[in-house]
Amino acid sequence: MISASIVGATGYVGEELVRILSTHPDTKIVGATTQNYVGQDIGDVFPSLRGRVNLVCEELNIQNIVKKSDIIFLSLPHGHSAALTKEVLSYNKKIIDMGADFRFDSKEVYEKWYGVSHALPEVLSDVVYGLPEINREKIKDANIIGNPGCYPTSIILGLAPVLENNLVETESIISDSKSAISGAGRGASVSNLFTEISGSVKAYNISKHRHTPEINQELSKLAKNDVHITFTPHVVPMSRGILSTIYCRLKNITTAEDVIGLYKEYYRGSSFVRIMNKGVYPETRWVYGSNFCDIGFEIDEYNKRLIIVSAIDNVVKGAAGQGIQNMNIMFGLPETTGLEAPGLYI
Amino acid sequence: MISASIVGATGYVGEELVRILSTHPDTKIVGATTQNYVGQDIGDVFPSLRGRVNLVCEELNIQNIVKKSDIIFLSLPHGHSAALTKEVLSYNKKIIDMGADFRFDSKEVYEKWYGVSHALPEVLSDVVYGLPEINREKIKDANIIGNPGCYPTSIILGLAPVLENNLVETESIISDSKSAISGAGRGASVSNLFTEISGSVKAYNISKHRHTPEINQELSKLAKNDVHITFTPHVVPMSRGILSTIYCRLKNITTAEDVIGLYKEYYRGSSFVRIMNKGVYPETRWVYGSNFCDIGFEIDEYNKRLIIVSAIDNVVKGAAGQGIQNMNIMFGLPETTGLEAPGLYI
Amino acid sequence: MISASIVGATGYVGEELVRILSTHPDTKIVGATTQNYVGQDIGDVFPSLRGRVNLVCEELNIQNIVKKSDIIFLSLPHGHSAALTKEVLSYNKKIIDMGADFRFDSKEVYEKWYGVSHALPEVLSDVVYGLPEINREKIKDANIIGNPGCYPTSIILGLAPVLENNLVETESIISDSKSAISGAGRGASVSNLFTEISGSVKAYNISKHRHTPEINQELSKLAKNDVHITFTPHVVPMSRGILSTIYCRLKNITTAEDVIGLYKEYYRGSSFVRIMNKGVYPETRWVYGSNFCDIGFEIDEYNKRLIIVSAIDNVVKGAAGQGIQNMNIMFGLPETTGLEAPGLYI
Amino acid sequence: MISASIVGATGYVGEELVRILSTHPDTKIVGATTQNYVGQDIGDVFPSLRGRVNLVCEELNIQNIVKKSDIIFLSLPHGHSAALTKEVLSYNKKIIDMGADFRFDSKEVYEKWYGVSHALPEVLSDVVYGLPEINREKIKDANIIGNPGCYPTSIILGLAPVLENNLVETESIISDSKSAISGAGRGASVSNLFTEISGSVKAYNISKHRHTPEINQELSKLAKNDVHITFTPHVVPMSRGILSTIYCRLKNITTAEDVIGLYKEYYRGSSFVRIMNKGVYPETRWVYGSNFCDIGFEIDEYNKRLIIVSAIDNVVKGAAGQGIQNMNIMFGLPETTGLEAPGLYI
Repeated sequence: MISASIVGATGYVGEELVRILSTHPDTKIVGATTQNYVGQDIGDVFPSLRGRVNLVCEELNIQNIVKKSDIIFLSLPHGHSAALTKEVLSYNKKIIDMGADFRFDSKEVYEKWYGVSHALPEVLSDVVYGLPEINREKIKDANIIGNPGCYPTSIILGLAPVLENNLVETESIISDSKSAISGAGRGASVSNLFTEISGSVKAYNISKHRHTPEINQELSKLAKNDVHITFTPHVVPMSRGILSTIYCRLKNITTAEDVIGLYKEYYRGSSFVRIMNKGVYPETRWVYGSNFCDIGFEIDEYNKRLIIVSAIDNVVKGAAGQGIQNMNIMFGLPETTGLEAPGLYI
Repeated sequence: MISASIVGATGYVGEELVRILSTHPDTKIVGATTQNYVGQDIGDVFPSLRGRVNLVCEELNIQNIVKKSDIIFLSLPHGHSAALTKEVLSYNKKIIDMGADFRFDSKEVYEKWYGVSHALPEVLSDVVYGLPEINREKIKDANIIGNPGCYPTSIILGLAPVLENNLVETESIISDSKSAISGAGRGASVSNLFTEISGSVKAYNISKHRHTPEINQELSKLAKNDVHITFTPHVVPMSRGILSTIYCRLKNITTAEDVIGLYKEYYRGSSFVRIMNKGVYPETRWVYGSNFCDIGFEIDEYNKRLIIVSAIDNVVKGAAGQGIQNMNIMFGLPETTGLEAPGLYI
Repeated sequence: MISASIVGATGYVGEELVRILSTHPDTKIVGATTQNYVGQDIGDVFPSLRGRVNLVCEELNIQNIVKKSDIIFLSLPHGHSAALTKEVLSYNKKIIDMGADFRFDSKEVYEKWYGVSHALPEVLSDVVYGLPEINREKIKDANIIGNPGCYPTSIILGLAPVLENNLVETESIISDSKSAISGAGRGASVSNLFTEISGSVKAYNISKHRHTPEINQELSKLAKNDVHITFTPHVVPMSRGILSTIYCRLKNITTAEDVIGLYKEYYRGSSFVRIMNKGVYPETRWVYGSNFCDIGFEIDEYNKRLIIVSAIDNVVKGAAGQGIQNMNIMFGLPETTGLEAPGLYI
Repeated sequence: MISASIVGATGYVGEELVRILSTHPDTKIVGATTQNYVGQDIGDVFPSLRGRVNLVCEELNIQNIVKKSDIIFLSLPHGHSAALTKEVLSYNKKIIDMGADFRFDSKEVYEKWYGVSHALPEVLSDVVYGLPEINREKIKDANIIGNPGCYPTSIILGLAPVLENNLVETESIISDSKSAISGAGRGASVSNLFTEISGSVKAYNISKHRHTPEINQELSKLAKNDVHITFTPHVVPMSRGILSTIYCRLKNITTAEDVIGLYKEYYRGSSFVRIMNKGVYPETRWVYGSNFCDIGFEIDEYNKRLIIVSAIDNVVKGAAGQGIQNMNIMFGLPETTGLEAPGLYI
């Protein structure tokens, strides 16, 4: 039995970690920290968990947490995770950071985009970017995982096969991504009120979103080449899901069948990636509440463009589910353990 | 391993049966019939199931279905289930009808409200109304279960303790219920389009809804008295959930604490019923995707009224989940088998 | 041309006042105050208004506002309006308070339910409760109007004819009301986030909502009798609209036709009240964006209950539209001036 | 007073025509035809119109309609409008076709993409594509207007200034467009049910949507060059609105300020186009219920890409509102007549 703790359990990602771990057959949640709900039952903070999870939210004492845990999930605002990790590095426990602190190879890139200095730059070279479909082998032996951002997960999985196989012009890549508002978290804010989100769609942070350098870093490794995509995030009125519509120009014209064949082969051992048949494009509904990433294709022959549509649940495959998938790999469990339930269709 | 079949698998209730049974540890789905999707993979009809369920939708041949199944879930328009059951009565297999055909003690009441004649009235006295929290013992030995309607589930569970204990004036009972539109099924219709449901609330079939006699039948048994409630169903713009706000006049003034105590005692062995603390009223969000029924209370002292708020997921506790709970009981399994996952908070 | 100012223009009610007044043929907006957006264009606060309204939000200086205005709409948290009005009473300008400060005949009732002391109790006997369909004549000469609450508007209009005609048992009245979340305003709060409201329905403040004494006060006047209803507000996932489903026991059984006839007669001169035909119950969609109140009926004969369904747009007829209707009456204009546009069906 | 008729008044576009025309000061609706609601009051079909519009839906008799009308709006499935127009060409009345029949210069392109033969190809050279911001002068004298599609409106207005000024590489243009589901009309269909649209986003008809050739035709004229964009439509869970995020590569790097200046100049006389300031991207909420098109910009310097975000209400500026704007121009009225009301912010 793995003893797992969640530091920052009362945000939406924390809640999803608790929800999924509560039915994980090989894990026991031993600690859950919070800033705002100290002493409260997790079931009072998220009443959906009542009767299923018995857990009192505690104030953060990182030493206590680390001592009782085999693995710690850090679900905190950026900057905090690196500082906490520094405090407990000597304990040599497994850490999965759900935030941005351990996603970057370069301290400088992180510090430029996130505006804080990194508290633990010396470990960055040992840290693993936790996208199992790409880095499965490295994750097995990792001690610190930077769990990928939600947008990057949908985009990198959508592009990996064509980049590794050098099929597209890298300077042509655009990702137009549509996200549920849960990606903005559970903080009180006027702009995320029901009245301000319902019935409307908007773009934001065009070419300035903090996930941009993370996407570029990983795509560049896959392409063995410097990749700088144009990335436009949007908010659509829904609670879960990201759909990334990715555009790239093909070096040579090809068929949808060939592309589909390539992707099926590439993701053969990755049961959470489902490749759609010709003419089928995924909806976020299809992955709602599950750890799947569904990918479909179209070719605009006239323009020699490949259009890739990639759908995930942003709080599962884009956050908590992927974290648990990483944990499974780190502890030698089947990757799908605790993540087998299909999503909700309606 | 229980071999289960679903007759009518491509509606929303059918889909939920497949979804939940797909992770049930003691069940194997051996058949799934359909009218409109014969020969298609269930994962093409409901892409959320892809990669999790391998099942080809077949045309209905009830003999074939019965032969290979230990239990058959019938998820059909009213009238069809009784006729089908008649054909296969001699096989002596377990049947759970998700529709109205086996919910009534009286052939006459059924025929009056549903406008068809009953094909198998002779079994009605042996059939069990499948509300486990009330009829658990009878369900154990039942061969045919009439699975309760969604509204009745939320209302009967909300009222059972006060009726059995004779605490309220039965002629004062009103249930004002708010339902998700999934209760209307998956048929093409103008009135259920997104554009016609989104952003609006409406009442319908006031005091004429077909669940009214079902509610009255069961409440009357609990009260040992003729009960005729006023029942107003509403549609609210959501995909899952029913909230019933139930009003009744107390015979003697009492406290919320006493009511809560009574309900906790009454549902002590029923782990799917969660009784809220004083001042807490359930939201349908809290039961989203789960088999729970959450119940909260308020007392309007001036008017000597007890207000009971009862929340379920209409397609789980109000349909498929309850059906599986019944199956568990019929086969001697723990009632919660396959139904342990908490719902989604967001 | 009427010079109108809005004190508190950057909440949702303030925005609706600006929106509707911007096309009002006899009004000019001369002032709009704000706490959080001083110096900003109203079109930057609410971009829907860009190009239609030229108005810079100013800090509140009540003397300045009063001097340049014929009428002042106060859209402020309770307690503030009475204090402000006290400061400017001598100017003898028309005031319409969108909040609770001038809705009560009794200082004591107000102070008990709102928990603040009333700054200007001496005017309460001269103030008029601004429900035009009931108090049209008094509004004509009023200087200070207490604009009704949203729930009270839907409930009082729904009940006035039967109460004035003594047709129902007053102790039997229950209103189960379903509101859009815009009623909670534009303040930052976790509980009103899209993620917390979308896809769910909940009851709140059962029999404790501050609109309860306001409803009871007005219903008691109509019934010429002490009325204490049971009132349960709910939040449903929509941006506009209130549906009140009102239950009352008939003194003598009657027909829906008779009730409809009575209501049509009662509201003959009130063009914003639309009485539905038999068997038709209004949806909030039907009044979306308009100043209408739609009312429909059902009779539960067995229980001798009349069920009244009343629908309004909470920010129009439940707030800003009604305020402007009051203004029209106070200035001798046709009641419908500036309020003629039908609502949006989708 | 202009006598206007609407052929096909009981779809969503027809309803919007009636809604907006009902407050148009210079128009009287003299006829409204329907297939499914013959003899019914329009207020029974769309109850939002009750008490505001008195109009009985009639069966289509095109001769009768033409005789009593100065202008006829045709809101019909493609193929029907051309045939009807042929019947009444000799009457020489003004016709605005809301469908696709008169949007194409080339009979062949129309017939290829719509799969029907054109009944009236001989008038195509006289017909005017009714996008006032581009073709205002021609519209003045037109007898037959092909009212633009919703997606094309948002995309062409977004691109016209840069194309006319030859600032972008035309082969680089991509429009990723997000639409409300009302664009799919009011027909009964499973795929447009609330349960199938709510909470999810999807792409459809990638590079195959019938608006593609319409977009290309108009952009080619503006660019004086053959333009073939990549066009991906999406459905997002809302009732009104289209957001087009348009990507194109700049021939020479420029600043957002310069682009904004160019657009403000280009649309100086077009009061329905609102150009956003630097760093502001429009939301569909900002144009909800109004005839505005809001356009904002970002420049991805690294990739030399200009990103244009264009927002309209698909049933107003994308259909009925634009039709009425065209009518105003055809009859010498100020373009904004009847279209002055700001949209709803919430």
